[in-house]
Amino acid sequence: MEKLKNHLKRLSKFENALALLHWDMETYMPSNAAERRAKIIGEISTYVFEEFVSEKTKEYLESANPKTSEDEAIIRLVKKELEKVEKIPPKLFKELQIANALSQQAWQKAKEKAAFNIFKPHLEKVVKLQKEVIEHIGYEKNRYDTLLDNYEPGLKTETLKKIIPTLRKFLVDFVDELENGEKPNTDILEGEYDVEKQREFSLELLKMLNYDLTSGRLDASAHPFTISISHNDVRITTRFDKYDIKNSIFSTIHECGHALYEQGIPEEYRELPIGDGASMGIHESQSRFWENIVGRSLEFWNFVYPTFVKYFPRFKDVEVEEFWRAINIVERSLIRTEADEVTYNLHIMLRFELEEALINDKITVEELPMLWNEKMKEYLNITPKNNAEGVLQDVHWAHGSFGYFPSYMLGNLYASQILFAMKKDIQNIEEKIQSGQFDEILSWLRNKIHSKGKVLEPNELIKEISGEELNPNYFVSYIKEKYSKVYRITH
Amino acid sequence: MEKLKNHLKRLSKFENALALLHWDMETYMPSNAAERRAKIIGEISTYVFEEFVSEKTKEYLESANPKTSEDEAIIRLVKKELEKVEKIPPKLFKELQIANALSQQAWQKAKEKAAFNIFKPHLEKVVKLQKEVIEHIGYEKNRYDTLLDNYEPGLKTETLKKIIPTLRKFLVDFVDELENGEKPNTDILEGEYDVEKQREFSLELLKMLNYDLTSGRLDASAHPFTISISHNDVRITTRFDKYDIKNSIFSTIHECGHALYEQGIPEEYRELPIGDGASMGIHESQSRFWENIVGRSLEFWNFVYPTFVKYFPRFKDVEVEEFWRAINIVERSLIRTEADEVTYNLHIMLRFELEEALINDKITVEELPMLWNEKMKEYLNITPKNNAEGVLQDVHWAHGSFGYFPSYMLGNLYASQILFAMKKDIQNIEEKIQSGQFDEILSWLRNKIHSKGKVLEPNELIKEISGEELNPNYFVSYIKEKYSKVYRITH
Repeated sequence: MEKLKNHLKRLSKFENALALLHWDMETYMPSNAAERRAKIIGEISTYVFEEFVSEKTKEYLESANPKTSEDEAIIRLVKKELEKVEKIPPKLFKELQIANALSQQAWQKAKEKAAFNIFKPHLEKVVKLQKEVIEHIGYEKNRYDTLLDNYEPGLKTETLKKIIPTLRKFLVDFVDELENGEKPNTDILEGEYDVEKQREFSLELLKMLNYDLTSGRLDASAHPFTISISHNDVRITTRFDKYDIKNSIFSTIHECGHALYEQGIPEEYRELPIGDGASMGIHESQSRFWENIVGRSLEFWNFVYPTFVKYFPRFKDVEVEEFWRAINIVERSLIRTEADEVTYNLHIMLRFELEEALINDKITVEELPMLWNEKMKEYLNITPKNNAEGVLQDVHWAHGSFGYFPSYMLGNLYASQILFAMKKDIQNIEEKIQSGQFDEILSWLRNKIHSKGKVLEPNELIKEISGEELNPNYFVSYIKEKYSKVYRITH
Repeated sequence: MEKLKNHLKRLSKFENALALLHWDMETYMPSNAAERRAKIIGEISTYVFEEFVSEKTKEYLESANPKTSEDEAIIRLVKKELEKVEKIPPKLFKELQIANALSQQAWQKAKEKAAFNIFKPHLEKVVKLQKEVIEHIGYEKNRYDTLLDNYEPGLKTETLKKIIPTLRKFLVDFVDELENGEKPNTDILEGEYDVEKQREFSLELLKMLNYDLTSGRLDASAHPFTISISHNDVRITTRFDKYDIKNSIFSTIHECGHALYEQGIPEEYRELPIGDGASMGIHESQSRFWENIVGRSLEFWNFVYPTFVKYFPRFKDVEVEEFWRAINIVERSLIRTEADEVTYNLHIMLRFELEEALINDKITVEELPMLWNEKMKEYLNITPKNNAEGVLQDVHWAHGSFGYFPSYMLGNLYASQILFAMKKDIQNIEEKIQSGQFDEILSWLRNKIHSKGKVLEPNELIKEISGEELNPNYFVSYIKEKYSKVYRITH
């Protein structure tokens, strides 16, 4: 067991270097270095991959003698990964990698010109190869299960299909209902915001929320992200938009949620497969918990508003409740990444339904733009002006990340379910938030989730936390209660 | 030959990652990550080292069929490195590494407390092990040759000993002579300088001097340095001192000189042992050329002064010549890194003489502080108040870098010799500088030096450039002429 662990820990140090190479690429790398950087990353990744699938790993694995549940989890995770790799013929793997790279380039062009036809043949190729990969890996009931398993181990397509229709109906109806409420006034948010002030305020937020800046840092990048370079080095980035203060605030809090998870993973799990989040969905639950449940609550803004006004004095005559309502406006919008808490999951359902049908040959790539627009009309009653703000808006399909989208929705659902469980242990959470006492909340999350690393599968973890399987009703109650207040609707 | 090259190119990509890990450590790494970072660097360095000394390298080397002088240089450099490694017993190598690490820690403490005794036993150990290493590697006439060879391949101790006495005498006498001249008024430099303005002015300087900011960047660090992460990614750092504008200006130009060298190394040499500077001394000649010969000249300030005044308007009533004289003041000072062009080499001679005597058992570690102070008295007529500003001031001996100090002096000597050669090809260099036309100067350096990489040894290179071996007379003439003007002395 020690041999296996040391082998994995050694390889993880090369992964640490890869993480830094990636972080640097998105933050500080000189533009001309891009081509060379890709080659460096390629060479080191190849080495790590080859060492991982080597006979050495298999030998250590066979002779490993697990003594703890952590050891067992390590063995399970390594075996699973190795089996998956072994089932895919190297030629097919390589072909898929090349197809993904070309498809991503084509997508970029297609999006710029809003021309789906540029992207279509590439996406067809990617889908075809993805299906071949799935056939090699195998599946029980639904091809899509294999894809889901990459991001949410153990979750079945069936479960999603059971949950979605009711949830979708509620959301579609609820968006309609909000139209009878009192629309927040977003005019108060208009105007310019000094970027340096935004940066300083972001740092204030991070300190408040107990993100450890001596074991991490905040930088700017085009797309905000969190990355663990190593233990004690969990970095986040945010985005500063001169005309949209919401962007930096909620990107910062969102990434802070991811980073608090990573900073809470036990040191002894680090450099091992269990030194990671339980799944993409659970990871997203942590970012959404802090971004939405805490960060978009009235209690939070009651606490943070004086500091905010110090940085942006123009708000000194704006009531905190008006500000809170403005940052929680619900809109029938086209772009997923800009969607609010209520409509967000509708964007995800649309994508899930299309990709699941695509992988199971129920629809064709050709039909995608049309079906996308039909579903947008049905769920949100709006129609994209062109494919750039429709089917071409996300990069995920372009680089072959089918099965990823549900993680975003699961994050939202888990977060509400976690909140409900937390309320049984912590009295008056709202008051704690209102007085800036976030440490008890963080300790609870550390204890129940962060400290578990990737030892448990997400379904086991959520059951351990809440006593039940994934249940979307908590999210429904949360949305109903909060947005009735935002829109001043009385039932 | 191709196999050997591909092997080396592969390894160099891991070295690129190491370079980034180092750069990040000095610039943006969160403080708590230090311990983990050392382990990551250790693991990857070990891998690169083991791959380099592997049978694979030897096989490729034996069957390699060099076709060009570049190929031959590659083989020569790899062979030399391998032989050196093979002659040192692994146990001794490891022992030295540990001793160096401990010694550096002890030095830090000793310097803080100005207590040489804390450092003494560690330095004794390091010197003892260094001598053992030299005995294993072997030498012809002088143990110190082996050390010199690490930084200045081919240079002999004999050569330095021949050059130094005359040069020293000139410098000691010249410093005396300057006391009869007109001392520059440095009061005009006193006061505070906004750090952001310093950063902006540093960037202006880099652009003027043709440093390619799309293939590099400028950051701040405690000790300024230049690092090649990869081709098209040559980064520099500088230091911003709120009360000393000279610090950032000349650190920036100095590092710019190093970086222009690195940015001028041919792409096809990159990732190979020839894709580097010819030696530490030649590298230093490039930084000193730009920092001192160009950057501290009156012509340069005639050109740059209007921009400088734009950033620091307080100088609008200061004559450029007064400013130029102030930044060129010659002082009997204690700290090498703060020394001016005239006294700098005296600091180096002192160190060279002591370390050469130490390695050849002519003096003991115990005697070092006393001998240091005696030489300071003799060369500069000043005495350190304590060992922190005396024998303990530099880190070099603490981490075992014996033989490095002469590179600094060689850089100064080479730079003047290069200037003399350049003047034969470029008419009116002073006028070019005065009008900001630095491109012709850079092209000349690119053509004569940068484009050669490490194909030639430094003595071959300087002969090719100037038609003669290292000759300190060019430096003497340069110093005499310039500082007679600064101090308004007429002969």
